[in-house]
Amino acid sequence: MFLHNKRLMYTVRVDRPNPQFARLLLEQFGGPNGELAAAMRYFTQAWNEPDESRRGMLADIATEELSHLEMVGQALVLLMKGSPAAEVDKVEGSYLGNLLNGNHEDYIELSTVAPASVLSGGGPALMDSAGNHFTAEWIDTLGEPTADLRSDIAAEARAKIVYERLIKQCDDASLKESLGFLMTREIAHEQMFAAALAAITSNFPPGKLAGDERLGHVYVHDSDGTSPVGFELAQQHKGDWGFELVDDPISRSADQTIL
Amino acid sequence: MFLHNKRLMYTVRVDRPNPQFARLLLEQFGGPNGELAAAMRYFTQAWNEPDESRRGMLADIATEELSHLEMVGQALVLLMKGSPAAEVDKVEGSYLGNLLNGNHEDYIELSTVAPASVLSGGGPALMDSAGNHFTAEWIDTLGEPTADLRSDIAAEARAKIVYERLIKQCDDASLKESLGFLMTREIAHEQMFAAALAAITSNFPPGKLAGDERLGHVYVHDSDGTSPVGFELAQQHKGDWGFELVDDPISRSADQTIL
Amino acid sequence: MFLHNKRLMYTVRVDRPNPQFARLLLEQFGGPNGELAAAMRYFTQAWNEPDESRRGMLADIATEELSHLEMVGQALVLLMKGSPAAEVDKVEGSYLGNLLNGNHEDYIELSTVAPASVLSGGGPALMDSAGNHFTAEWIDTLGEPTADLRSDIAAEARAKIVYERLIKQCDDASLKESLGFLMTREIAHEQMFAAALAAITSNFPPGKLAGDERLGHVYVHDSDGTSPVGFELAQQHKGDWGFELVDDPISRSADQTIL
Amino acid sequence: MFLHNKRLMYTVRVDRPNPQFARLLLEQFGGPNGELAAAMRYFTQAWNEPDESRRGMLADIATEELSHLEMVGQALVLLMKGSPAAEVDKVEGSYLGNLLNGNHEDYIELSTVAPASVLSGGGPALMDSAGNHFTAEWIDTLGEPTADLRSDIAAEARAKIVYERLIKQCDDASLKESLGFLMTREIAHEQMFAAALAAITSNFPPGKLAGDERLGHVYVHDSDGTSPVGFELAQQHKGDWGFELVDDPISRSADQTIL
Amino acid sequence: MFLHNKRLMYTVRVDRPNPQFARLLLEQFGGPNGELAAAMRYFTQAWNEPDESRRGMLADIATEELSHLEMVGQALVLLMKGSPAAEVDKVEGSYLGNLLNGNHEDYIELSTVAPASVLSGGGPALMDSAGNHFTAEWIDTLGEPTADLRSDIAAEARAKIVYERLIKQCDDASLKESLGFLMTREIAHEQMFAAALAAITSNFPPGKLAGDERLGHVYVHDSDGTSPVGFELAQQHKGDWGFELVDDPISRSADQTIL
Amino acid sequence: MFLHNKRLMYTVRVDRPNPQFARLLLEQFGGPNGELAAAMRYFTQAWNEPDESRRGMLADIATEELSHLEMVGQALVLLMKGSPAAEVDKVEGSYLGNLLNGNHEDYIELSTVAPASVLSGGGPALMDSAGNHFTAEWIDTLGEPTADLRSDIAAEARAKIVYERLIKQCDDASLKESLGFLMTREIAHEQMFAAALAAITSNFPPGKLAGDERLGHVYVHDSDGTSPVGFELAQQHKGDWGFELVDDPISRSADQTIL
Repeated sequence: MFLHNKRLMYTVRVDRPNPQFARLLLEQFGGPNGELAAAMRYFTQAWNEPDESRRGMLADIATEELSHLEMVGQALVLLMKGSPAAEVDKVEGSYLGNLLNGNHEDYIELSTVAPASVLSGGGPALMDSAGNHFTAEWIDTLGEPTADLRSDIAAEARAKIVYERLIKQCDDASLKESLGFLMTREIAHEQMFAAALAAITSNFPPGKLAGDERLGHVYVHDSDGTSPVGFELAQQHKGDWGFELVDDPISRSADQTIL
Repeated sequence: MFLHNKRLMYTVRVDRPNPQFARLLLEQFGGPNGELAAAMRYFTQAWNEPDESRRGMLADIATEELSHLEMVGQALVLLMKGSPAAEVDKVEGSYLGNLLNGNHEDYIELSTVAPASVLSGGGPALMDSAGNHFTAEWIDTLGEPTADLRSDIAAEARAKIVYERLIKQCDDASLKESLGFLMTREIAHEQMFAAALAAITSNFPPGKLAGDERLGHVYVHDSDGTSPVGFELAQQHKGDWGFELVDDPISRSADQTIL
Repeated sequence: MFLHNKRLMYTVRVDRPNPQFARLLLEQFGGPNGELAAAMRYFTQAWNEPDESRRGMLADIATEELSHLEMVGQALVLLMKGSPAAEVDKVEGSYLGNLLNGNHEDYIELSTVAPASVLSGGGPALMDSAGNHFTAEWIDTLGEPTADLRSDIAAEARAKIVYERLIKQCDDASLKESLGFLMTREIAHEQMFAAALAAITSNFPPGKLAGDERLGHVYVHDSDGTSPVGFELAQQHKGDWGFELVDDPISRSADQTIL
Repeated sequence: MFLHNKRLMYTVRVDRPNPQFARLLLEQFGGPNGELAAAMRYFTQAWNEPDESRRGMLADIATEELSHLEMVGQALVLLMKGSPAAEVDKVEGSYLGNLLNGNHEDYIELSTVAPASVLSGGGPALMDSAGNHFTAEWIDTLGEPTADLRSDIAAEARAKIVYERLIKQCDDASLKESLGFLMTREIAHEQMFAAALAAITSNFPPGKLAGDERLGHVYVHDSDGTSPVGFELAQQHKGDWGFELVDDPISRSADQTIL
Repeated sequence: MFLHNKRLMYTVRVDRPNPQFARLLLEQFGGPNGELAAAMRYFTQAWNEPDESRRGMLADIATEELSHLEMVGQALVLLMKGSPAAEVDKVEGSYLGNLLNGNHEDYIELSTVAPASVLSGGGPALMDSAGNHFTAEWIDTLGEPTADLRSDIAAEARAKIVYERLIKQCDDASLKESLGFLMTREIAHEQMFAAALAAITSNFPPGKLAGDERLGHVYVHDSDGTSPVGFELAQQHKGDWGFELVDDPISRSADQTIL
Repeated sequence: MFLHNKRLMYTVRVDRPNPQFARLLLEQFGGPNGELAAAMRYFTQAWNEPDESRRGMLADIATEELSHLEMVGQALVLLMKGSPAAEVDKVEGSYLGNLLNGNHEDYIELSTVAPASVLSGGGPALMDSAGNHFTAEWIDTLGEPTADLRSDIAAEARAKIVYERLIKQCDDASLKESLGFLMTREIAHEQMFAAALAAITSNFPPGKLAGDERLGHVYVHDSDGTSPVGFELAQQHKGDWGFELVDDPISRSADQTIL
């Protein structure tokens, strides 16, 4: 059961309205690395999870992400105050005729505000900063813990980077403080998921089937034109795994099939 | 701030697994009239709402819808237990070779289960019963209360009908009881939104601008071939509003423009 | 059978080109509350409708919405005349070489026009003002009249608000007059659908199944932190229905299930 | 202005209900090569078209496609009669209690009908046969006549093939006759667009800019492993254009850039 | 098997960064007529193609389109150098505190750059110039050669027009040269596909079923208000096919069905 | 520059046609964890990557994924041979009349084959096993190496699991061998990306900004009802990081804001 308390998890303050930054911030409200995507990612994983400890962690974090979603929504409302979108509905017009006959004081400059937010009333919308609606295509839950936890670690890393970029674009000290809170929580969550993955004794390769020994260590140098720098990188940092270089993929092909 | 309690809002019981019905029930998990769509509809409206009473109602109902989402998720998990999707990951296969060389006891019949649920691990996914992912395109919040409340009334009416159809397709008495709870709550919510709309003194036409008197009462009989039965219907039940019939749209056109 | 007449339903005039406003106006051409969405909403409902009067009304209004779509298209073409998009195809260039060697008089400033409209030739495109393509996800026809008519009432209310916002953003007196026509027709249609709903004797709750008496009158105060203002609102305006307040959802939970 | 007549353009008859074929036929109602896509393709092109003859043809054909859409809708309704979807709403249930306590005569077998059509009421929906909603992504209007007419010719060819495949899958003689009408009209339209393209004196290359002579006749043999059969095909049938074979793309690369 | 060589197919040079033009150019990276769409169009056709010559051509051209995709990607990277998006990650910030306490030299003006590219790191993204993600909805392969080749001819014509419009909007002489190469290749490919279509002896009507002789030559004048100019156009340029004019569609309707 | 060789990277054999399994296998052709998604993920990352070693690895692996895409395409074609889709176009029908008048030997049973594949000609389509078209929404490239490499590791883990589930569903020994090759390569790639991440000296937290020390170690127990098992899990396996438990989120809220 979900419950709501009208206090926010952390104070959100904004020094002054800024509809343009609001448009950027939408990314973390309805975007692919945003708070709804995060909440739904962990919520759907929790239902597939037989292990009580992991399920407990997923439920805790899913709920916290909903509280973050609320914080981003609050920031968006404060940033959009005084924008054309917020003003446009205030106009009193009892007769259309008045509007049509040159009574133009109600006209509000479009400036650089995104059209969509003008027409949709200026509230937080579940879209990303490019105007793409939230979609569950962004949620990659598979129901296998060692794969899902890797997906969660990556998702928290991406969310951290998006908050970092937002902070760097932001010149509003109060808002920066709120964004700093949200960014920091992504770091904490990434660590929690790393701990949960480490707790699974055999977590590589993910799943139950081992691969074919002969193929799992082959590095195929498919992109010619320089020395195989990718192979050297892999070799240098995974000594115990070890890769074998295949530098002539065509002759090593196991296939005689002609397309 | 959102909080979670591990008790469900209402008990969910399922008499026996039924992956096919699970596929149908997905409609209310990740579909257009489902519980996430409802929660997000009211959640986004709450942030645009200056009136404290309406905002309070929206926050209460948004939170309840999240608890409903959880109930539907629980039902889905119970329905899919023992389905191929739930079984497929149990197979222990330490060597791929075993699998390749005729050791076929691990093969599980696909039968009629939706392929997507087999591959995605069988848990609740944010899609509708046709496999379309949840999208915020389904959320029609505008930020104007008299329009948004009408949208909410309609959304609750649609959700009620979908639960009714699910109940009629269902032969699992326990699940029927849980679906009955969810259907009933849609009826309650529809009434609450009707009350909130009634409380707005001037709620028609929605918004601030009145229309043009000469055009607002015209019924245009654009679809010929029978008597204007639509006009008769409108006339009969809206005597105080009243419509004027236009039966020859071309000659009444105010336009001389040639495309 | 559909027929077309080259006269518009109502004259569309534009005082001067304005590509930026055209971008906004796209919302009613290919957007969620636009004219194609409306036409297709009523068209699909008509095919499910056994009642002749309602089917007649739906066919009349669906056809009128197609005529509105045409009017919005005409306004878009007039607004985009002289825009870079309209100019760019006029350039005569028989040799690419000329273009490459400094012959730059053909260069046209991008200014603030939406890139998509430059590349797509500047004509009316079936997208909303944020550039999202028209999708039938926006059409919520269910095939049950009391639900569908509520959806129609809500859809007309939203369309009315979008036209109102467009009118308030518009400083072109001629276009304002055309938009006023379109806005007024939404008011008329909303009334027609209200009449059709009133004509159905038992229209609440929608559908055939009654809900559970014990649950249909409960108001759950899920969002704590202030007094239950939402409950007070509902109670005040629906005396004959009446709600019972549940202020402690956890202890009232009918569930002992642990997630 | 659009008008509607309640007579269909051509009689639609169905010998017996067949919900499974209805699902296939959806392809031409709301699919990428279906009738709405066709109508909207020509409708949007008409608004960009300065030439009166082409505009006239586009308006004629766009309108006819709407009449086809109606025919497909009628076929869908007839095919779905008696399907679970059509039956499910008939159940009278004044008390939910009756349903819950073993009164199971209202249970209807799901069989192989697509879940989505059960829940959505069984009417024609704007989706393709795989359940994907209609989207304007399928409409490739550019506003340049020689490109758009080629797109139209291709669209009619594809639509013809889809009807052909439907006819071959169909064992209902009456419906086959109706589908034959629709297929034949695609052939007619393809010819009309071919005529309109032929009427444009210089229609290749499309647009105003000529290409670079040195590059426009080169055939690059990028896919090795057999003799350049694609080049031979091109050479054989376009003698007056003529292609030059490049069989060693890397050494002929004009680039020294290293990625 | 695919292989890669780090030399580009053709040199890409850009005289100076221009993030705004980069946004336009995205159209040919991840848009409907862009290079990935082209590559995937021909790649999927090749797998359905029993004829060796056509399959060879499709494989050659599919591979070349991937090399074009790479060229557009390179141009995008060069255009975005020095943009806010490229700069934002360079900021060193070991302590969030510094950022919060007035150390604002890291603030970068948003200017007119698309928000999405700021947050996504400024690299080439698989979206069109309006920010819509690449989707396989744009790929219209049917697996029937005479239809697919017509689709290919049309696709090349559209791609040619988009490059032409980009060239006309571009004032960077070096980039213009690269775009000229890409535009010219579309012309060459269109010719190759025309040759392949001509090589199929019976290529009209597409497919195997002939249509109904009585219906295939009828021109229906559905859009009234002027003389049937579309019919005249068709008649004038297709004398050997020939069309019969139907100027009164209602009375010629073969239907007595009332909807 | 990309090149193609008509030999496959690895032999693909199928013992017998199986259209139903083909539908499942589509997941790895056009699905979210499929081969095109993988190729485009690494291709877009390569263009943002200043480090030569990482860029080399990304180019090598992106190219290999295209070769895998081809292998999956080949498997799909072999699985669909003899399916209704492959047969339906063979029917010779010179006269529609024959088809209409009871000549039914051309009728082919729909059986359980997905309708979409019948109408689209049965070739490999860029969709997942539920019929959703490939979309670049699935590609989460950000242009920051420590985040992107984590995303790559997770993507390879997910792809490995999907192949594992396909293998377990498959009873075709030859195909199983081919799928085993593809599954094993995902394991190899995951290791390569892990090596590349390990080679970045400071790779946690991702990006440049450190978080707030006070918030980065807090575990918030938001989901009540059992003991904080998620906290215990995190604490047990990340001793050097360490988390502080917050068991009463409301009183610890830093906020006094009332929504």
